[in-house]
Amino acid sequence: MRADIITIGDEILIGQIVDTNAAFLGKALNKIGVEVRQIRSISDDKTAILEAFSEAQNSVDLVVMTGGLGPTKDDVTKHTLCEYFDDSLVFCPDVMAHIEMLFSKYVKAPVNALNRSQAMLPSTCKQLFNHHGTAMGMWMQKENTVFVSLPGVPFEMKYLVSKYLIPGIKESFSLPALVNKTMMTYGLGESIIAEKISDWEHALPPHIKLAYLPNLGRVRLRLSAKGTDQAILLNEIDALFDALYPIIGENIKGFESEEPIEIQIGNALIAKNYSLATAESCTGGALAALFTKNAGASAYFKGSVVSYATELKHAILDVSKDVIAKHSVVSEPVAMAMARGVLRHTKANVSVATTGNFGPAKGDADAEIGTVCIAIITPEREVVETFCFGKHRDRNLQKTVNKALELLHGILVD
Amino acid sequence: MRADIITIGDEILIGQIVDTNAAFLGKALNKIGVEVRQIRSISDDKTAILEAFSEAQNSVDLVVMTGGLGPTKDDVTKHTLCEYFDDSLVFCPDVMAHIEMLFSKYVKAPVNALNRSQAMLPSTCKQLFNHHGTAMGMWMQKENTVFVSLPGVPFEMKYLVSKYLIPGIKESFSLPALVNKTMMTYGLGESIIAEKISDWEHALPPHIKLAYLPNLGRVRLRLSAKGTDQAILLNEIDALFDALYPIIGENIKGFESEEPIEIQIGNALIAKNYSLATAESCTGGALAALFTKNAGASAYFKGSVVSYATELKHAILDVSKDVIAKHSVVSEPVAMAMARGVLRHTKANVSVATTGNFGPAKGDADAEIGTVCIAIITPEREVVETFCFGKHRDRNLQKTVNKALELLHGILVD
Repeated sequence: MRADIITIGDEILIGQIVDTNAAFLGKALNKIGVEVRQIRSISDDKTAILEAFSEAQNSVDLVVMTGGLGPTKDDVTKHTLCEYFDDSLVFCPDVMAHIEMLFSKYVKAPVNALNRSQAMLPSTCKQLFNHHGTAMGMWMQKENTVFVSLPGVPFEMKYLVSKYLIPGIKESFSLPALVNKTMMTYGLGESIIAEKISDWEHALPPHIKLAYLPNLGRVRLRLSAKGTDQAILLNEIDALFDALYPIIGENIKGFESEEPIEIQIGNALIAKNYSLATAESCTGGALAALFTKNAGASAYFKGSVVSYATELKHAILDVSKDVIAKHSVVSEPVAMAMARGVLRHTKANVSVATTGNFGPAKGDADAEIGTVCIAIITPEREVVETFCFGKHRDRNLQKTVNKALELLHGILVD
Repeated sequence: MRADIITIGDEILIGQIVDTNAAFLGKALNKIGVEVRQIRSISDDKTAILEAFSEAQNSVDLVVMTGGLGPTKDDVTKHTLCEYFDDSLVFCPDVMAHIEMLFSKYVKAPVNALNRSQAMLPSTCKQLFNHHGTAMGMWMQKENTVFVSLPGVPFEMKYLVSKYLIPGIKESFSLPALVNKTMMTYGLGESIIAEKISDWEHALPPHIKLAYLPNLGRVRLRLSAKGTDQAILLNEIDALFDALYPIIGENIKGFESEEPIEIQIGNALIAKNYSLATAESCTGGALAALFTKNAGASAYFKGSVVSYATELKHAILDVSKDVIAKHSVVSEPVAMAMARGVLRHTKANVSVATTGNFGPAKGDADAEIGTVCIAIITPEREVVETFCFGKHRDRNLQKTVNKALELLHGILVD
């Protein structure tokens, strides 16, 4: 079965926000076997919405749309649904009671006429009750196509997706099996990989598709299979990936996990009863922020010292002034001393330290722009390495975070 | 003039990546007066791409597409362009020389047949030379519609946009003036604002559009105007916004800047010759990471202590154990002591400290989930406040970062 995702809102078209809803929906639909034909972002405009509906009608089985359900005049989705379905809005007392409850509890203001309008829903829609907000979801059907409208607030949208959309799709449609699996490779460019595996690629069966996803020093290879049985497809994909080991085995670093790498690291730390601290200069707290973003980080994460100014490396992390003077602040001895210093102060037993020069200016360091030293200490090993990442600050930050995680993952998990 | 943005790649449809290219392009086009009719994300599939082309042909003046220009078999954009334009690929020696140069310099591997294929371009295209990669951009025209194809790698795409796309559009089209300006309001829900400003809203002239953008405790009001003269439109918008002060003045907190709030804070710190440090518990380094992400942060940012574990608040930030025992770790006295401690250790003179309980578990604190204390010290003022943000970890992190920035901005800039 195929679906269109439609995200409604001028803020997307003028680049005022990045459309993360579409990616969330794409992932959720793909996971249960719904093939997304396209994502379409359009204006808060009746004509544009109606055109997108007509184009989807009977071409796809399902249209999932987000946005345009607020109480204000620029929100037109509900009226457009009524026009397309030749329906009209009716007052829903249960929705009104819920809106009144939310207002008395959180807004501490009386409900006004605009809020009251959110209790008006198309008479033929199946209501997807939104316990977390005032905009209800709607499920409607015309001929062979189901139209589902969800609020644009990501938090509310996600709630309705897991509570109603996914179960509703499973109940209403017979779904094929779709399987995606992504192999991680490091150290070879995509064209070189493609040349090496070209016989393998040409022999892929028609129901299995290969994609190359190159990104900052690594190339991910994704196989996507479509069929009737998930387990059979997964076996086929695994057998195909196995056949790559004799060809590019030393460049393969496992598979992309459903779990982000920082979660895998956290789980490994918990399993070993280790605790982590970071000493960050060039990454400026990005590593600490990445670990602590996740619930449960306090089970293994002690803390971090962000010694952005050179003098703090001495003042808070006890890096000797002589070492800094002799080797310069971007150097392996300084990185290692930072890693040791943060262990001493936090009583953690695993540490990651970064010192580097991301540019655009050269700063206090002698090192060329793009030079980064990463040190890692664990009870089983000490590692320090220098990397030359290039001239671009944003990319240097991302590359350093990726590399630090890769090194730590390598020691703790592989 | 109107444009479609087409982003090509299955990785977008299955939610493997978030499509940030579309937002970047939307913003860049909007800025010079190009109205984006829609953003469309489609599969790496000839039929899907051709359908999107046909649908755009003569409906919009410009189609900007990204992706599908790599050297591997799954990249089909160039072949599809040839089919659509009834054109064929020709070998471009200058592109080949550039690819060979990149390979000898960075890849340290010989150029293979696949790389060579990247030097083949449609014979009628205007080449947009990509100095930062092997995939060239292309500019082609059919009847009244220009088609521009750009690589999907964000860094390379952005380079071609500023170097060729924007100047090319300015040269080839007569552009209307588009102006967007966004007012920030705090403390009123969108429906309450809408009720209060309803007379004002109904009197808006037809060429000026209002949007409500509610988000975590604030509502942004965006006015978008279309006309022929940028200065006149801006005057009109400013006059309209001025008329809101008598109605909701005390809830207005200025305008959304082109500059992110952390850059505005950084500039204010530099102007006052102040230096900043953060002491972060619940935000886990997110504030430090936000400031240091930007070039030039070393001019005002000293560093941070992320005292995630309770004992580090004492060990590194000198918060007395008695204060923690008496008031609990999530409390205003602890936040204030953290702010003082980090000033002492870093010799900064402005500090922000956060301590809170983001959930889902209650942790070491007595405080309810969602309770956050933020302390700020500057040479002119000391502030400490407690907030109750709610039950959801991700939102609590974002709300705390927003609130800390808002408070600091309020002291330094307003």
